[in-house]
Formats: sequence, C-alpha cells, structure tokens
Amino acid sequence: MNYVFSDRVAGLQASAIREILKFTSDPEVISFAAGNPAPEAFPVERIRKCSDAIIAEEPITMLQYGITEGYTPLRDLLKARMAKLDRFRADTDELIITSGAQQVMELACKSLCSAGDTLICEAPSFIGSLNAFKSYNADLVGVPMDADGMDPALLEDTLRTHPNTKLIYLIPNFQNPTGQTTTLARRKELYALAQKYNVLILEDDPYGDLRFAGEDVASFKSMDTDGRVIYAGTFSKVLSPGIRVGYAIAPKEIISKMVVCKQVSDVHTSNYGQMLAYRFLTGTDFDAHLAGLRQIYKQKAERMIHGIESCFSSAVAFTRPQGGLFLWCTLPEGNDMPGFCKRAVADYKVAVVPGNAFMVAESDVTYSFRLNYSTPTDDAIDKGITMLGSLTKDMFGC
Amino acid sequence: MNYVFSDRVAGLQASAIREILKFTSDPEVISFAAGNPAPEAFPVERIRKCSDAIIAEEPITMLQYGITEGYTPLRDLLKARMAKLDRFRADTDELIITSGAQQVMELACKSLCSAGDTLICEAPSFIGSLNAFKSYNADLVGVPMDADGMDPALLEDTLRTHPNTKLIYLIPNFQNPTGQTTTLARRKELYALAQKYNVLILEDDPYGDLRFAGEDVASFKSMDTDGRVIYAGTFSKVLSPGIRVGYAIAPKEIISKMVVCKQVSDVHTSNYGQMLAYRFLTGTDFDAHLAGLRQIYKQKAERMIHGIESCFSSAVAFTRPQGGLFLWCTLPEGNDMPGFCKRAVADYKVAVVPGNAFMVAESDVTYSFRLNYSTPTDDAIDKGITMLGSLTKDMFGC
Repeated sequence: MNYVFSDRVAGLQASAIREILKFTSDPEVISFAAGNPAPEAFPVERIRKCSDAIIAEEPITMLQYGITEGYTPLRDLLKARMAKLDRFRADTDELIITSGAQQVMELACKSLCSAGDTLICEAPSFIGSLNAFKSYNADLVGVPMDADGMDPALLEDTLRTHPNTKLIYLIPNFQNPTGQTTTLARRKELYALAQKYNVLILEDDPYGDLRFAGEDVASFKSMDTDGRVIYAGTFSKVLSPGIRVGYAIAPKEIISKMVVCKQVSDVHTSNYGQMLAYRFLTGTDFDAHLAGLRQIYKQKAERMIHGIESCFSSAVAFTRPQGGLFLWCTLPEGNDMPGFCKRAVADYKVAVVPGNAFMVAESDVTYSFRLNYSTPTDDAIDKGITMLGSLTKDMFGC
Repeated sequence: MNYVFSDRVAGLQASAIREILKFTSDPEVISFAAGNPAPEAFPVERIRKCSDAIIAEEPITMLQYGITEGYTPLRDLLKARMAKLDRFRADTDELIITSGAQQVMELACKSLCSAGDTLICEAPSFIGSLNAFKSYNADLVGVPMDADGMDPALLEDTLRTHPNTKLIYLIPNFQNPTGQTTTLARRKELYALAQKYNVLILEDDPYGDLRFAGEDVASFKSMDTDGRVIYAGTFSKVLSPGIRVGYAIAPKEIISKMVVCKQVSDVHTSNYGQMLAYRFLTGTDFDAHLAGLRQIYKQKAERMIHGIESCFSSAVAFTRPQGGLFLWCTLPEGNDMPGFCKRAVADYKVAVVPGNAFMVAESDVTYSFRLNYSTPTDDAIDKGITMLGSLTKDMFGC
C-alpha cells in the first residue's frame, strides 16, 4: 500500500550531512564529523564496580518498572548538587530524569509549543534539537550569533515580529557547533529580553562541566528570578552517552507537564543507567573524574588548534573553544563551503560537518564547518588537520 | 510567571485512577491495580552473568553512542526469531529497537497521524497508548468489544463515518485491560475491514509469549499481505520492564520514518538493556525461561479465579484469560462502579482500577474494573479477593 505520513515528519528528511557521514564508514577516512566522547574517557573499571553493586544489592529495583520522574536517589542527589550551583531552587523547582538531554528538548517543546508557536534558536545550533522542535511543527526561527553569543538586537527584532514566541533555545557553554561561550554580559541582556517579551528560555548545557580554559560563567538558570528557565543537563559527555541519562530542572508546573509527556513516550528512563549514574556520583570521586576528562579534551583541543595554526591557510578563520568537543572553521565569504566539505572527504579522506547542517533550513547560507576533536586519536588529529590544511592552501593560498 | 501549555497536553490530566493509586502506597492496602511482572519472575542470576559478560567483553560498545535503529546483533536475532513466527518478512519489513513498547505507540502515531486524523482503538484499551495518541492530537475513537474481540459492525460504522482514519490500534492477545483474546475468525474480519477502508493496523503484543491456556492464534502481522500492519513487541513482560527495551516490525518505509522520529526523541535506546536482552536470548534457554513464566502466571491467574468463584457475588461477571496479567470484572448494569472501587480501597483496603480509566473519555460509562494477578503474592491474592468478595456480596447479594 501507499503510505501517507504525518505533516510532522515531512520536513525531517535525510540530509546533506548523511552524504558526508556515509563516507565515515570507510576505514581510510579520518572523521572529525562525530560528537562522541573519547573512548579513553570512559572509566570502565569504576563502572564495572558500580554495576556489580547494583545487581548484587538492588536487582529488583533495576529490573522492575520505575517511576516516570526518575530514580529517587539520583534525583535527590542531582537536586542537592544543582542547588549548590544555584541551578535548583527547592521551593519552586522540580527535577525529572530523562532519556538523555535530547528528550528534554522533545518534552519541553511538546509540553509548551502548540503547532505554529515560534521557537527561537541560535543560528547555527544543534541539529538534533532543531529537528525535535520541527517534529512538533514549531515555527523555528534562527537568530545569528556574534563572538559574545546570540545577537540581542536581532533577537529583539525577532521577538517583536513573532509575538507567539514561546521559547528561546540556547547552548551557552561551548556551543554545538561553534564551540563559543556566551559572555555573562550577553546572558544578562538575553535574559532581560526574555523578561521584556515574557518568553521562556531552554538552556541546554551538555558541555558545562568540560571547561578546560577560562572561568565559569553564571548559568541562565542561576539568574532566573521569574521561573522562566528550563535547564537541561546530561551524563552523556561526563560519564556515558550509551546509558541515555539526562535531566531537566524547571518550575514545578512545567516539570509536571513534562512528566505526563514522558509517561506516554517511554514510561521511564532505563533504571540501570540511572542507578549507574547515582553509584558513580556517590561511590567515586566524580570531581576528580571530571578533572581527568578536562585534561583529555584540553590536550586534544590544543593539538587540533596547533595543527590548524601550522597547516591551514590563514584565510580560514576558526574559534578557540574554552571547553566542550567542537570548534568551528569559516572559509572566506563567497566560497563554496559544501564543495569544500565534499572535496575534503572524497579527495583528502577527512570528514567534517558542513555548517548548513546546523541551520534552521539547510539552504541557509554559511561558510563554516564543524570540527570535532574529542573522538579522533592524536594521530588522526595530526594527519587529518594536515590533509585539511593542504586543501585550504590549495583553495585559498597561504 | 504564568505558563501556557501546548494544546497537546491539555487533555492529559491527572485522572481518577490516580485517586485510587495513591492509596497503594499505604502498606495495608492490597493492590490489584498494578501491571508489573511478578518479582519472582526476574531471572536475577542469569541476568548477572549476562551483565558481567557485557562489561568484560564490550564495555565501549555499551558506554558509547549507539545507532538509532538499535544494537545490530539484537535486531538480527529478533528478525530471525520473528521471521520464524511469520511476523517479519526480510524483503519488505524492517525492525527498530525502541525504549519499551510504549515508544512504538508514540513513534507510530507521530509518524503517521497529523493532528485530527482518526485513530480507532478497542473500548476499553490500554490507557498508556491512548494517552500517547491523544498527545499527538489524534481524534481517538473507541469501538466496543464482544467476547471475540472488537465488534466488526461497529468498526465498519466508524470507518465509514471517519474517512480520515489512519490506524486501528489492537491488543489481540490477553488484552489490557480485559484479558480477552481476539479469535482467529474475528482477526480475519478486522483485517478485511482494514483492507476495505485502506487503513493501517497497529498490533500491540506485549503478552503474546505469556499464554498459559489454549492455543496460539495467528497474529495480524502474519496475515498481512499488503504491508498494513505495524507489530509491537517488548521484553518488559518476559525479561524486565526496567531495562526499557521493545521493538517494532513494519514495512521499511514506515520504520524509516519511525527512526527519524526516534532520533529526535531519545537518539537511541540504552545500549545496556539491548545488550542484556541479546545475551539473555543467546546465552540462556529463553524458551525454558518463558515456560517458567507461564507457569507462574497460570498459577496466579487460577488462584485469583478460584477465589472469585468462591467469594464473589454471582452477580459480578468476570473474564477467564488464557494468558497475560489481567482479568476484568463487570458489575450488574446500572451500578455505581467508581463508587464500588472507592469503597474497595477506602473500606476494604483493596485497590483495583476502575474501568473508565481505560476508556477514550473517562466519562464513558462502564461497569467494569481491572484486576491484576501478576504482582501480588499468593497470600495477597487470597486475602484481597476475599475482601472484595465481601464487598460484592454486601452490594449485590450472593
């Protein structure tokens, strides 16, 4: 029979990125296209011990149905940890465990945005979140960034012309894809605009614990005097993405709607992952573990930046992230960026993600592409950056 | 600030069942309201061995990101197993691993139903699925059942008056909440109507492996000559619900849309649960394990039925399930069923789920309530049924 699909999925088609990503199964291709934690960052031995303890001590809790809100010991622990960071207020906030931070984006949009409501995001932004918003028929509008974060004048224009805006989606720390951090002054400006136009902020912070340079910047959640910030955290980048454990902190009324939506989505998050995260946080020195991760990513980021400085054409601009997994390169304006990315993978065997993959519409013009330094080995970073450098010099001179 | 939620969640409010369920945290209350596997049904020792092997042999696969479609060894194994049962056709079908069968309902509805499309379900049916459909603004219409399954004449009336019907949702084996099994003749009739009106069937089969009496009945999927059946299976009732692993089998075009929707929902299902299911299926005698489960549930069902026969007023009708976890009792017409359920829990300390919890609208009239026999101990079954029996005799005589 012929299938007629919903209007929700019509806009979610296989994209140009897939064209690039399919090359990455070729073992000769060096991939800077992923967003995976470094394999050496997984604390396998300590995870084995936590896992043994779960099955020895709480097998039925692990195997039986859990509650939708999440495993209570983990929730209590995260509330206490986040309260110390001024991201959880016991009197007004609640916390839900989710199946990765991706599910926070889905539940927030599903709970809050009727079809056609406007949701504003940074341009560029994380493709997974953008597709989640699109899948609920949100009217997604991208607002360009400068070096300090989302442009406040352009945000205000957008808020003025889109009175049905519900949410502003922001990744303030080491943004995916740009690697940029929104400054404190800019955060205050953006928050003030959210107040002025009475909209919510969805603060996505998967990389916040992975700062390896500079000073921490206060979260939107910590400056939230009105209950207008939903904060999304995750264990994907600091413990394991395979266990699919994230969390959202928001005013109680919002979390209670997200609970209802989660119940019909997957009932609850896998108990094992939640219990593993809890045991890992309580039974090991988590802060020392984070310090170790920062060291790994600092070294990888510096290696990649050093390679770019040595090998790339000076016509190519790039960001210098203070944390996270990505940096962002920009070709001189007017050049054929998608063509560059195709040549990189086809002729030079190096995969990068073309920047239009992160735009609201893939047809939006950008001259940038994303590089990931967390997944490749040191050797692969050196070789791949050298190859990419040759291509940049071939195209743009020294 | 004041929050305005989406029109999707407006209809998903805390319900009358919650009124009942909150009593179940009282340790004095005997609960027949759950739907959990029996704790003694969890093969903890064998799970421990599988778990040890996963972390010893494939820690990085377990901890790193997986692919949205699911862990390939488990998918291949399920395809082979389901092909033998005539539920998977390699030339036209595909299989996706989901975060429990609940997610199959969500992904199927999200992929196929635009807002306002009609989705037909049995009345009564599983509340979790109904809420998932409502959360996508599907126009949900319930069609009553008789002893053989959904009423075909009423189904045809509904299909005629709702030309925008996309899906018929059916639980053919040991239905939740009624415990009834749709007969083969009725399945053929319902399938023929789906053909005549060119709609899809969503076949939800969480309990199919838990048959403890009678003969297996051919699945809708096995009689599907047109590619109009989406089959949902799960490990929740045969291994563990806490690991959240289910699967869907459907024509490739449909699965590819479900993959896109799953990617924006939770990226992929927890690797640990998938790997555990795979190891359990390959490393142990799964069929012997199923035989053991059937024995547990057969004994519990017989115990509850025996109690009902001995203790209940003969004015109360009840179903005799051939498998699964539930049976369904019906008070004489015109009686106050919700009042009966409230008295049961408040005065007799026995919790049951009032039948209107399973109707499309909670205001739909029904005189039935659901009893679960898988979760309570033998002792609790004996005591609880005796208490309920007293209430029935008090209200309806012997």
